[in-house]
Amino acid sequence: MLIDINSACKLLMEHDNILILAHQKPDGDTLGASFALMWALKSLGKRARVECSDDFPKRYGFVFEGYEPDTGFDPEYTVAVDIADASLIGPDDMPYANKINLCIDHHKSNTMYAEKTLLDVKAAAVSETVYEVVAAMGAPIDRRIANAIFTGLATDTGCFKFSNVTAKSHYIASKLIEHGAEHAKINKLIFDTKSRGVLMIERLMIETTAFYYNDRCAVAVLPADVSDKFGVGEDGLDGISSFTARIEGVMAGLTIRAKPDDTYRVSVRTSSPVDASRICAAFGGGGHMNAAGCTLHGELSGVMNSLLTAVKGEFNRHGID
Amino acid sequence: MLIDINSACKLLMEHDNILILAHQKPDGDTLGASFALMWALKSLGKRARVECSDDFPKRYGFVFEGYEPDTGFDPEYTVAVDIADASLIGPDDMPYANKINLCIDHHKSNTMYAEKTLLDVKAAAVSETVYEVVAAMGAPIDRRIANAIFTGLATDTGCFKFSNVTAKSHYIASKLIEHGAEHAKINKLIFDTKSRGVLMIERLMIETTAFYYNDRCAVAVLPADVSDKFGVGEDGLDGISSFTARIEGVMAGLTIRAKPDDTYRVSVRTSSPVDASRICAAFGGGGHMNAAGCTLHGELSGVMNSLLTAVKGEFNRHGID
Repeated sequence: MLIDINSACKLLMEHDNILILAHQKPDGDTLGASFALMWALKSLGKRARVECSDDFPKRYGFVFEGYEPDTGFDPEYTVAVDIADASLIGPDDMPYANKINLCIDHHKSNTMYAEKTLLDVKAAAVSETVYEVVAAMGAPIDRRIANAIFTGLATDTGCFKFSNVTAKSHYIASKLIEHGAEHAKINKLIFDTKSRGVLMIERLMIETTAFYYNDRCAVAVLPADVSDKFGVGEDGLDGISSFTARIEGVMAGLTIRAKPDDTYRVSVRTSSPVDASRICAAFGGGGHMNAAGCTLHGELSGVMNSLLTAVKGEFNRHGID
Repeated sequence: MLIDINSACKLLMEHDNILILAHQKPDGDTLGASFALMWALKSLGKRARVECSDDFPKRYGFVFEGYEPDTGFDPEYTVAVDIADASLIGPDDMPYANKINLCIDHHKSNTMYAEKTLLDVKAAAVSETVYEVVAAMGAPIDRRIANAIFTGLATDTGCFKFSNVTAKSHYIASKLIEHGAEHAKINKLIFDTKSRGVLMIERLMIETTAFYYNDRCAVAVLPADVSDKFGVGEDGLDGISSFTARIEGVMAGLTIRAKPDDTYRVSVRTSSPVDASRICAAFGGGGHMNAAGCTLHGELSGVMNSLLTAVKGEFNRHGID
């Protein structure tokens, strides 16, 4: 059942011993929003803890610095944050999957698996909605909460660069800075720091990117050993996926990563009107309009051909030569 | 003489046939603010035009699209926008240098050369102040004006990433989006488009960057022919200056560009507390805390030694090994 901000607030205020779940492979938005909500609830005298099926990535260490989970209570009320589908809770927290009392989310694809759902598909980040919930509960927004919400907002908007940004996103950022959010420090950590491993992978990409269809499609292929060789984890490789799409004139940028057993993981980034999710849907993948992914099997040459045919089809649909 | 927003407004409202000067080598802020002011004045029934000693860079083409300067009047009132010193007006507009009636600026270094100066050193971009002037004049903020001001704001804040951003910057961005600013389109054009020439220069930098002082200082040297060889102008090269500073752990990133006659143009980008302007001041250069520049003469080896000594001195001052 869909509910609004005030109803969500009321439910949270009425309960105690609250378990907050962030999604598996946590990003800055699920973490920032979860921790902000937890601290707000604690400041109102409640017991609460954040759990996640995977480890919190050290990249967002400043969000959960000094966090000691309060494991001394059995959850009475469970809140899923930024989790579109129960399967994304992840294996370690799966026991909670069929007893989520409240889901706070911003994904259009939310499957409404929770008892109650606070869903704002116009929110660029779920952290925007958590800001509104925290404010409506009357919890004081201290620097720690402001930093956590800012982290979520900045992560999901590419530092206010993406098309999902609204007037409200900037308005909330403005309020968070008034509450002491250390925006410049957070932005530098998230957006302006590149490991030397990532730099070496970018060099490889510059050397190997191939261009097709009047240079409107760029394809980079990364060998299977790239992660080990350069010491770059999944988190770092995710950031590299948009590399080809940033080249001038490119409307579809593909990054193909070889995996064991003739499997290829493909990231597609596009400029509107080219629809990345349509290109990936042909291979059972999916995602958003400008960022999607899919997995293909077989020989690299065949994989390339299939992908290029799908890109061409999508270009044709928009009359792009 | 320093004046406030309301006095600046009153002066602009009292005059007609207004010449607006953007600074030489114009960037998104001087252009966005100048054009926004011009359109606002025109919408109030005044004649106005923007002039600049250099050509408007095509990169900001969307700001001045379709602009036909109204050359049919002799300036009665001259406004300098984002110009800290009369010498930065540039040679073509130098005749106006000693008759600037109003300067609107945000540089701490403003030399107060104008008759009246509206100076807000806390503004991340002069476009913030122009937004306040336009709003105070009661001029309608249409999409064109909103786009121009947003361009200035985004340019000078690195898309809201730099430490100069304040709560007011985000608040104004929020208002501009309400007025129809095409933020995503503008951000993509300014921040997410890399020419293949720039990519090739980045590859060169990855290959040649040298690290010093426990990898806290990174130095890239670009040969004199880099601009011609890769078809990248000054504008594109400016963006590359922050490349070395983005490498993980680097607190001082230097980019040295060889110029004719044993001259080296040096860009210094730092993380706080390391002060880029102090490093450059030793060589007669200057700038801001985290971004500054200077020019050195002599052999490259001597230039490198001098720069590294200055970096070391600044590191020592902060107890950085």
